[in-house]
Amino acid sequence: MFVYADNAATTAVSKNVLDAMVPIYTEVYGNPSSLYSVGQKAKEILEESRERIAKILGAKPREIYFTSGGSEADNQAIVSAARFGEKKGKKHIISTKFEHHAVLHTLQALEKEGFEVTLLDVHENGVVTPEQVADAIREDTALVTIMYANNEIGTVQPIAEIGAICKEKGVLFHTDAVQAVSHIHINVVEQNIDMLSISAHKFHGPKGVGVLYARGGVALTNIINGGAQERGKRAGTENLAGIVGMTVALEDAVEHMDENNAKFEKLQDRLIEGLSKIPYSELNGDRHQRVKSNVNFCFEGIEGESLLLLLDDKGIAVSSGSACTSGSLDPSHVLLAIGRPHEVAHGSLRISLGEDADEEQVDYIIKSVTEVVEYLRSFSPFWGDLTTGKRPHVFLEHKAV
Amino acid sequence: MFVYADNAATTAVSKNVLDAMVPIYTEVYGNPSSLYSVGQKAKEILEESRERIAKILGAKPREIYFTSGGSEADNQAIVSAARFGEKKGKKHIISTKFEHHAVLHTLQALEKEGFEVTLLDVHENGVVTPEQVADAIREDTALVTIMYANNEIGTVQPIAEIGAICKEKGVLFHTDAVQAVSHIHINVVEQNIDMLSISAHKFHGPKGVGVLYARGGVALTNIINGGAQERGKRAGTENLAGIVGMTVALEDAVEHMDENNAKFEKLQDRLIEGLSKIPYSELNGDRHQRVKSNVNFCFEGIEGESLLLLLDDKGIAVSSGSACTSGSLDPSHVLLAIGRPHEVAHGSLRISLGEDADEEQVDYIIKSVTEVVEYLRSFSPFWGDLTTGKRPHVFLEHKAV
Ligand SMILES: Cc1ncc(COP(=O)(O)O)c(C=O)c1O
Ligand SMILES: Cc1ncc(COP(=O)(O)O)c(C=O)c1O
Repeated sequence: MFVYADNAATTAVSKNVLDAMVPIYTEVYGNPSSLYSVGQKAKEILEESRERIAKILGAKPREIYFTSGGSEADNQAIVSAARFGEKKGKKHIISTKFEHHAVLHTLQALEKEGFEVTLLDVHENGVVTPEQVADAIREDTALVTIMYANNEIGTVQPIAEIGAICKEKGVLFHTDAVQAVSHIHINVVEQNIDMLSISAHKFHGPKGVGVLYARGGVALTNIINGGAQERGKRAGTENLAGIVGMTVALEDAVEHMDENNAKFEKLQDRLIEGLSKIPYSELNGDRHQRVKSNVNFCFEGIEGESLLLLLDDKGIAVSSGSACTSGSLDPSHVLLAIGRPHEVAHGSLRISLGEDADEEQVDYIIKSVTEVVEYLRSFSPFWGDLTTGKRPHVFLEHKAV
Repeated sequence: MFVYADNAATTAVSKNVLDAMVPIYTEVYGNPSSLYSVGQKAKEILEESRERIAKILGAKPREIYFTSGGSEADNQAIVSAARFGEKKGKKHIISTKFEHHAVLHTLQALEKEGFEVTLLDVHENGVVTPEQVADAIREDTALVTIMYANNEIGTVQPIAEIGAICKEKGVLFHTDAVQAVSHIHINVVEQNIDMLSISAHKFHGPKGVGVLYARGGVALTNIINGGAQERGKRAGTENLAGIVGMTVALEDAVEHMDENNAKFEKLQDRLIEGLSKIPYSELNGDRHQRVKSNVNFCFEGIEGESLLLLLDDKGIAVSSGSACTSGSLDPSHVLLAIGRPHEVAHGSLRISLGEDADEEQVDYIIKSVTEVVEYLRSFSPFWGDLTTGKRPHVFLEHKAV
């Protein structure tokens, strides 16, 4: 059996999406900035895609900027707010400790320039409250940037409420919605969002294309200068095939969101129940306020990397932490942010189900993880100590489910 | 007859390229940063692509960074050199008046920060000399950035000689090779190039993917911060399908370069000869030191835009100036740089042939352009004045060919 359960890392391009992309590659290859017919045809499709994406988000077409992905969108949103704030003497930015590195590293670069960054603590359940944001806002706050759904533990933030506070206080609000847009209905106006980032490959679109939504009136700064594409705010010949693929993928995701979520919810229950039976294991992140396809567990005394590799042998593709930090020896900053000790954060497992998931897949995952955890613990000195009562700390309780 | 002769603006993805991309979209969709098999397979293909591209350029694989296109590569090269120079008190950059806007606008942004930019004049034949560069280099010069082949007039710069001067003087040298890499054999070591930009869609690869080559030892600054992709220098999940497509496209282009050039040279002769017969017309850029597929003409008394649209009616896709500036009312900065007066620069036509070009296509272009120019002049008041001897200036001579 092969189970790809790392859809939060990336997804396969769907048949629908590929079918929409191929004719663009071969037939509508014109440069949308060119005046002749094949260019104008490309231009039409580009603008139609912009309209379709805007419609899904409750935005205006001219508020949609196409980028090369979620990272670029995050960078541009944050840099834009920083440059705008700077002009008015506002050099304070609020974010959280468990953002994606595209946000955290951009903030670090700004800190080196003299910006002050407040990273809010995250509650044990993986959620930041509107009150925390309200308390942190100052006179010189240029931006609040808080992710919609976390990429590791899938917890969903109270974005509309946070947005309302920012609106009331006149502070720009950006949300990284890369992990949310295909799982949660988003309306930028109702949810008081000034800027929002999307990446196509998280919902069966192609890699290398994304969206930055920026409300009309928000001043964008280029991070890629050059031609006049994207109303002068993002230079480079438009990746039309990618944009069309993303548009189809997003429409498909949103159209099937409710039925998918209903299905995922049942499978999520089953997975959590099954994995909780493993001794000294615990779900990371809130039991309910989370993306329905995400399950993230800690297993005490286990190295996440070994867990992954043995599951891979059984045909199961899952991750430990996020894809970008796999291969690094640091424990996940997300798990540390929700208060997991280093020793436990190392032994985490993220399962992010795909639309093809079913009970059979889920049961196979539960069975395999149970076996592998048991096997790894059987020769772990750390775990050995625990069974003989000699281990200095027990971090996770063993609760009967 | 349909003739796409705007290959300098963009090209159609070739069958070879598409065939290489499709299985990546559908089968090798794993995230190259993931540890399990489908991720590792993606990683292998990513690194193999890097090796294949490095080989073509005479570079080392770890000197190849994948970007979202030529614009991003240009931006990152220039910003990196600026940040590195700045630290040593070097805030002077040398470039030319006829660079692509991805270079010029990045330089303008740096000027606002206090950098001093010297834009070299371009000779009437569209070429900048090594002596000009040598004369302009100062103690505080952080970077020389000069394009390999111009995107409008196709003139080729003496890159190896310019590189040698920069090397001797210890100044970083970047070249925008977006219009050159599929037409001219490039070896970064032999040609003394420190940094170089490429964009896949100029040689039948997909849009939205490119390369920044940076010699080992050149310190890169991120313009997109986040995950650890591209050795920490360019964040964002890798666009593997695009990268694979670009690799195949570049290999195909380089493999067939000599035979294509031999064919293009004959067609170029024929085109230039044919268009020169149009009264008050002139070739822009050097007759020989140019990309073989490029022909660029000025026709006095003509609006480039009308010329394009009427040629489009005849099934011919060509451009006036570059794609990025089409739609703008300003005359081409490239033609102004080589000394064309405003009035003449407006009436330019760029023909960039594709690999399918033949004598029949070329003759059809000559016939159509001749007809359209004559037609437009027949009711142009400007031109009317000339025929009756009342026009104040004659900018171009009418030479018998
Ligand atoms: C010389 C040159 N540099 C840079 C670019 C920018 O490349 P891209 O549009 O792929 O970002 C182009 C083409 O648009 C070009 O012709
Ligand atoms: C929450 C979040 N933000 C941003 C990104 C970056 O997106 P991309 O890799 O497409 O640039 C990702 C995924 O990698 C993500 O999960």
